[in-house]
Amino acid sequence: MISAVVLGTGNVAKQLYTALIKSPGLELAQVVGRSQESLTYFSEVTTSNDFRNIVNADIYIIAVNDDAITSVSHSLVSKKGIVAHTSGAMEMDIIPFDNRGVFYPLQTFTANKALDFTTIPICIEANHLDSLNLLRTLGDLISENVYEISSGQRQKLHLAAVFSNNFVNHMYHVAESICLQEGLPFALLQPLIRETAEKINTMSPKEAQTGPARRNDTKSMEKHLELLKHSSQRELYELLSEAITQVYEKEL
Amino acid sequence: MISAVVLGTGNVAKQLYTALIKSPGLELAQVVGRSQESLTYFSEVTTSNDFRNIVNADIYIIAVNDDAITSVSHSLVSKKGIVAHTSGAMEMDIIPFDNRGVFYPLQTFTANKALDFTTIPICIEANHLDSLNLLRTLGDLISENVYEISSGQRQKLHLAAVFSNNFVNHMYHVAESICLQEGLPFALLQPLIRETAEKINTMSPKEAQTGPARRNDTKSMEKHLELLKHSSQRELYELLSEAITQVYEKEL
Repeated sequence: MISAVVLGTGNVAKQLYTALIKSPGLELAQVVGRSQESLTYFSEVTTSNDFRNIVNADIYIIAVNDDAITSVSHSLVSKKGIVAHTSGAMEMDIIPFDNRGVFYPLQTFTANKALDFTTIPICIEANHLDSLNLLRTLGDLISENVYEISSGQRQKLHLAAVFSNNFVNHMYHVAESICLQEGLPFALLQPLIRETAEKINTMSPKEAQTGPARRNDTKSMEKHLELLKHSSQRELYELLSEAITQVYEKEL
Repeated sequence: MISAVVLGTGNVAKQLYTALIKSPGLELAQVVGRSQESLTYFSEVTTSNDFRNIVNADIYIIAVNDDAITSVSHSLVSKKGIVAHTSGAMEMDIIPFDNRGVFYPLQTFTANKALDFTTIPICIEANHLDSLNLLRTLGDLISENVYEISSGQRQKLHLAAVFSNNFVNHMYHVAESICLQEGLPFALLQPLIRETAEKINTMSPKEAQTGPARRNDTKSMEKHLELLKHSSQRELYELLSEAITQVYEKEL
């Protein structure tokens, strides 16, 4: 039986908590956070708002904002277990102990929206082989996809996630704005959005690309630019179309 | 019982055929296309590769490339039924007959990938009320979402679809490139991509936005720009981040 302590009370901590309390092979010994109020969510385990009062465990998972990881880790100076953060962007080495690691669930976490953790990839890294194995055992308890990757790879993966999550979401935002201007429900686009996301399970994005820029159909692109009211949207349209055209220009 | 003829043999024609042959309230009288070879797909109905040999029907659906709609419609000069095209971008009025309309299924169609037509929105438009009602009846046979929209609205909707499908897919392409450079499987990102697309069913994209640009976290953005190898990817990163920051700057 592995024991773990979660430090933090945000979305990642909440989702981890929900997944971990369901795992028979794991004892979630404590959740530690600054305010008593934010700890009420974690009602099925022992909680503490005193960082000098952390119980002993095999693994300490620091699930706080990137900027706070190092300072939170200082509260674990006297502990022997592995100290792992959950950040996609930060290097493993920002944790100032020899027995350090990373336990990064690659997903977007939203307050009050339950997720099926079994399909979420968990990217692990550790400074020692036995710590890596321990993180893998923990990962296997809640997910079917546990990958060992380096800090360098994780930073690139996090960058790729910015494109496929943050920037994609902004495309949805622009599409919604265009719909609302015309009095059209954004829901009209949702089946298209779903299919676009599903398509790449069976073909590569390069192969799946369609549209005026893919065909270098300048007439349609000019018409679209005329229809766009905001200069920032026109700039986006132009740069994205140019980027797509560049990918395929050799094939046209 | 409504009768319909489909002109065209591409992806839209194929998907319409698959949906229409399953509808008890409709007789798919004929599929017409240029080459006998492309017509072999439509094995459950009468086909013809002779545009001077089109049977009579209530509705003629022109499912061909935008550039070919007008010329294909000329083969229907002696017909009485409504002539409708399936394009998101073209105005209804490019069809040179009084009894004209549009039957636009808002989805991305890929060869050999079956779709559930019942969830696909169908946007209809017609020059006469009884024709509009006929197109609505046809739409209702295969889809649960039939909307009447004008040519102007449809062009904006098509533009919104470029953002939420074509441009989104390019983001997936960039993300895949970054993964492959690091020897990471693109499949790692697929749960994130799925969740990003699903999230907007329960919250608006504006509300769902996360990431460094949303927080105006310049440190993380600078780090990401350093990690990007291609200048075209850096340009995209900068412009997209700027666009996101602009949306939220008043709130920060």
